[in-house]
Amino acid sequence: MTDAPKAMTDLIDLMARLPGLGPRSARRAVLHLIKKRGQLMGPLAEAMAQVSATARECLNCGNIGTTDICEICQSEKRGNGMICVVEDVADLWAMERSAQFKGRYHVLGGTLSALDAIGPDELRIPKLLDRIASEQISEVILALSATIDGQTTAHYIADQLPGVTVTSLAQGVPVGGELDYLDDGTITAALKARRAL
Amino acid sequence: MTDAPKAMTDLIDLMARLPGLGPRSARRAVLHLIKKRGQLMGPLAEAMAQVSATARECLNCGNIGTTDICEICQSEKRGNGMICVVEDVADLWAMERSAQFKGRYHVLGGTLSALDAIGPDELRIPKLLDRIASEQISEVILALSATIDGQTTAHYIADQLPGVTVTSLAQGVPVGGELDYLDDGTITAALKARRAL
Ligand SMILES: [Zn+2]
Ligand SMILES: [Zn+2]
Repeated sequence: MTDAPKAMTDLIDLMARLPGLGPRSARRAVLHLIKKRGQLMGPLAEAMAQVSATARECLNCGNIGTTDICEICQSEKRGNGMICVVEDVADLWAMERSAQFKGRYHVLGGTLSALDAIGPDELRIPKLLDRIASEQISEVILALSATIDGQTTAHYIADQLPGVTVTSLAQGVPVGGELDYLDDGTITAALKARRAL
Repeated sequence: MTDAPKAMTDLIDLMARLPGLGPRSARRAVLHLIKKRGQLMGPLAEAMAQVSATARECLNCGNIGTTDICEICQSEKRGNGMICVVEDVADLWAMERSAQFKGRYHVLGGTLSALDAIGPDELRIPKLLDRIASEQISEVILALSATIDGQTTAHYIADQLPGVTVTSLAQGVPVGGELDYLDDGTITAALKARRAL
């Protein structure tokens, strides 16, 4: 791109580093931003500057907020003795959107992975064990991916918590899912976990 | 998203308005930005603010730059009597990346479209005719999409220019293909094999 001014090529290069955007979609996005600079690029620049200056990880659970201890950890109402363990903040947001879980969270920051040499100390697992020892926890719900690494992590955590009720999200047919489109593993899991109607 | 602070949900909503990003990829992108706030989000906010404040359309050709008349229109070297007509700035950038064309551009801002009620006056066509009358133009290269609307636009422009050599990109542009999707080599080949209309 010999033509575009340096500030513009810098912006495209930065945008291309976002997950899901390659060089081409970054160029498209920047042209779109330039066309909508009043309504979109200006506000976006401001929102980014503000979030960049204020966002921080909760020291207790790993959630992202604007305070050292996040709103969920601060809320008395959420202290119902349940902790839901998730891999990352996107999963916490997904749980919150379903609006079913009323307890607190613990964000691991990933899963155990032999391949990527990620052990318990690379995740927020020691802090989880601390919390379970110090908070009044009656149940730990593991809401981890139904992948090998996710399930290895679930079993590792369950093994560390002999005196605590540990549950995990049920595996099965997704709501609205057609059987014909599901992989064999999902069908097998759904069959094993079948319940009386 | 009952949980994320307002500044963060605002940022996600703004990001979701970018082409190619939906709500889910916008949430992923914002989490990535927050994790990389020092190296990525801060610089991105600054680059956006700068481009937002400085970007403008060239009054002559419609290219985007930081001056009323863009660098290509200002450059004596680029005044070789050739104008390459493109649909939008992304296509101009694609042409510049192939580094084969040494003349100036004219950005139409779209194509004629009966369906969308886009006529010549909605595009930068009158300005193109002005330029051809006032600048010393020996050849107009139409580098438009190989779509029905693109080719309709090419023929419309050719009909307005009886005394000028009008060529178009030919070989290498796949039927139904948009210029911005093509690799540099294809653009180079298509430019070299251009034919008189
Ligand atoms: Zn927290
Ligand atoms: Zn120009």
